Amino acid sequence: MNFNANSPIVVISEFPVRYAETDAMGVVHHATYLVYFEEGRSQFMREMGSDYAEIEASGFQLPVTEAAVRYVGSLRYGERVQIKCQLKENKSRRLTFSYEVANAAANKILVTGFTTHIWTDIEGKVTRAPLSWQQLYQNFISSKGKL
Amino acid sequence: MNFNANSPIVVISEFPVRYAETDAMGVVHHATYLVYFEEGRSQFMREMGSDYAEIEASGFQLPVTEAAVRYVGSLRYGERVQIKCQLKENKSRRLTFSYEVANAAANKILVTGFTTHIWTDIEGKVTRAPLSWQQLYQNFISSKGKL
Amino acid sequence: MNFNANSPIVVISEFPVRYAETDAMGVVHHATYLVYFEEGRSQFMREMGSDYAEIEASGFQLPVTEAAVRYVGSLRYGERVQIKCQLKENKSRRLTFSYEVANAAANKILVTGFTTHIWTDIEGKVTRAPLSWQQLYQNFISSKGKL
Amino acid sequence: MNFNANSPIVVISEFPVRYAETDAMGVVHHATYLVYFEEGRSQFMREMGSDYAEIEASGFQLPVTEAAVRYVGSLRYGERVQIKCQLKENKSRRLTFSYEVANAAANKILVTGFTTHIWTDIEGKVTRAPLSWQQLYQNFISSKGKL
Repeated sequence: MNFNANSPIVVISEFPVRYAETDAMGVVHHATYLVYFEEGRSQFMREMGSDYAEIEASGFQLPVTEAAVRYVGSLRYGERVQIKCQLKENKSRRLTFSYEVANAAANKILVTGFTTHIWTDIEGKVTRAPLSWQQLYQNFISSKGKL
Repeated sequence: MNFNANSPIVVISEFPVRYAETDAMGVVHHATYLVYFEEGRSQFMREMGSDYAEIEASGFQLPVTEAAVRYVGSLRYGERVQIKCQLKENKSRRLTFSYEVANAAANKILVTGFTTHIWTDIEGKVTRAPLSWQQLYQNFISSKGKL
Repeated sequence: MNFNANSPIVVISEFPVRYAETDAMGVVHHATYLVYFEEGRSQFMREMGSDYAEIEASGFQLPVTEAAVRYVGSLRYGERVQIKCQLKENKSRRLTFSYEVANAAANKILVTGFTTHIWTDIEGKVTRAPLSWQQLYQNFISSKGKL
Repeated sequence: MNFNANSPIVVISEFPVRYAETDAMGVVHHATYLVYFEEGRSQFMREMGSDYAEIEASGFQLPVTEAAVRYVGSLRYGERVQIKCQLKENKSRRLTFSYEVANAAANKILVTGFTTHIWTDIEGKVTRAPLSWQQLYQNFISSKGKL
């Protein structure tokens, strides 16, 4: 069951680079981009109406099973991060989000990647996506006029 | 020389708690608040017109010489961080910022603290604040109608 | 009830600076020292025989209620961190650990500080230290021949 | 030029999970594994005799151009991280390290991945590996009796 493998909905997040995120090379440390990705999909869920905090509160979790990152350029303190997040795969037991990170001012893609997640219950047992998730997702797509 | 020891200017920052900032207690890890403080004073400087990135580019640094944090309550994923930042001390060689961190929705102060900084040149030698800083600060206070 | 306010037991931890811990100034970011302190007291507890993981498993927590850090010098990637941790205050409801962080090779103190903790149960209600903690602490002091 | 595409040298690092590395799921946050990988290859370089701090001091950098991580299981506070790091590809302009992260006690592989790096000079221009690197690598392989 694949609800919409290539959803065209792009959710954008923006915030300043934090000094703590830079490293001795003067640029944002490469591990930080997985945190940026997480912020990107958190915002995706918030806009969709399904805050990940509520998902956990309702007894579900979405642990990361795979992540990949490609680094083309770098961000520095003083710049703003822009993340474009898409839900590329929304299967009954698995989600894949893709990400493009840019310098907000230059609108130049610097880092891309994806994360794959499985639905589990609170004990970590693999399960199906909650019905509420699928309903919210259908509403989200409809509201964006994309179906 | 103390330009305005108890500036009443309060700069407010707000952003969501990141999942990566939580720990196994389910709340934001205590070390994260020093990063929140840093975001608070970054925003203070941006609003004042003196992005810290520009300060470094002009040959100055503001390393932290002292930090103190008091934890009364905690933040969780799903909540928004609100930081109130004030410049408590603006001496020729030293700055002190104070911070109040709250849950944005509840407007309840959870964590307070301060950081003290010295002005140094790029080699780390203690120096006086750049003139541009003092001018921007005077303008900032004037623009807020507080003198 | 103060079991031994100024325990002379010093527990030493050592490990390399991580590149991810540095910032654009080329040195370890100031918030990282709270994480180093945490490693220092984790090691203190491990040597005392009371891994903090076991404390949590037995229904107790030790949230930080206060932290203070003084920065005199800095650490760089390529150097080894050395942390000296002492239990300065071991009251029935409150603990205070103090820390000295040095460059292991130079044996020069760069950062000092303390953290204060309260004993709580798993819901966060303030409680007394578990009996097992006090027994382990007495044994720890005895084994070091310091009483 | 590929000096030894599938070097059998495995360098092992071990250290305790830090509390700050856990998240609200109670396990090590997924972004932390990129930091663990970095520690793994830092140790690889130290054992090879070419501390990455020396590489930077000699005018070279090794930025990450690609990273991938697969998560099978998780680590918790109270456990020890064990990282096995191999240099899978040692080309004149590019390196690939692979990693296996396990729970040291259980010796069970929990997370695997790789990072790819290019050699650049201090301005970020792609360059060839320093000769000293290739010599150290040859010596490292010889000393392990693997050629």
